[in-house]
Amino acid sequence: MNIEDIVGILAGVFTTIAVMPQIWKAVKTRSVKDVNPYMFVILCLGVGLWTFYGILKKDWPIIITNGISLILNAIMLYLVVSSSYKKN
Amino acid sequence: MNIEDIVGILAGVFTTIAVMPQIWKAVKTRSVKDVNPYMFVILCLGVGLWTFYGILKKDWPIIITNGISLILNAIMLYLVVSSSYKKN
Repeated sequence: MNIEDIVGILAGVFTTIAVMPQIWKAVKTRSVKDVNPYMFVILCLGVGLWTFYGILKKDWPIIITNGISLILNAIMLYLVVSSSYKKN
Repeated sequence: MNIEDIVGILAGVFTTIAVMPQIWKAVKTRSVKDVNPYMFVILCLGVGLWTFYGILKKDWPIIITNGISLILNAIMLYLVVSSSYKKN
């Protein structure tokens, strides 16, 4: 494994897990009023398209990292949207 | 330009601009208490490493999209951290 592979794997792990602390905070505090749901709508669209890109290119690392990212960002989007509905 | 290129460009644009609505909301409301700064610490590390990956591979699209993403996520991290300091 060369330096590029190691940097690429680390980069993929960090960008994939980044949303986890935000999910944790949203679940713990049950408050998301300062979170803009459009951030997570656009992120879901983006990583969804990256997953599709990986499928088109038959590139498993792209499919797996972005597939996990899509699930995590969709969870966060659900937390924000469901909280907004409850308040209305 | 083939279908893969178009999907890849759209995916890159979406994941790069996703943080913009969150920056807008933070600036407008001046409130970020529900935002977890660790999300943006990890995102900055991740897209910073992707930028470095692009430099190692001499891949300009990776450098440009992740470089812009690094600047935007660093702005959001600054807004969250500076707001936390003000309250302490």
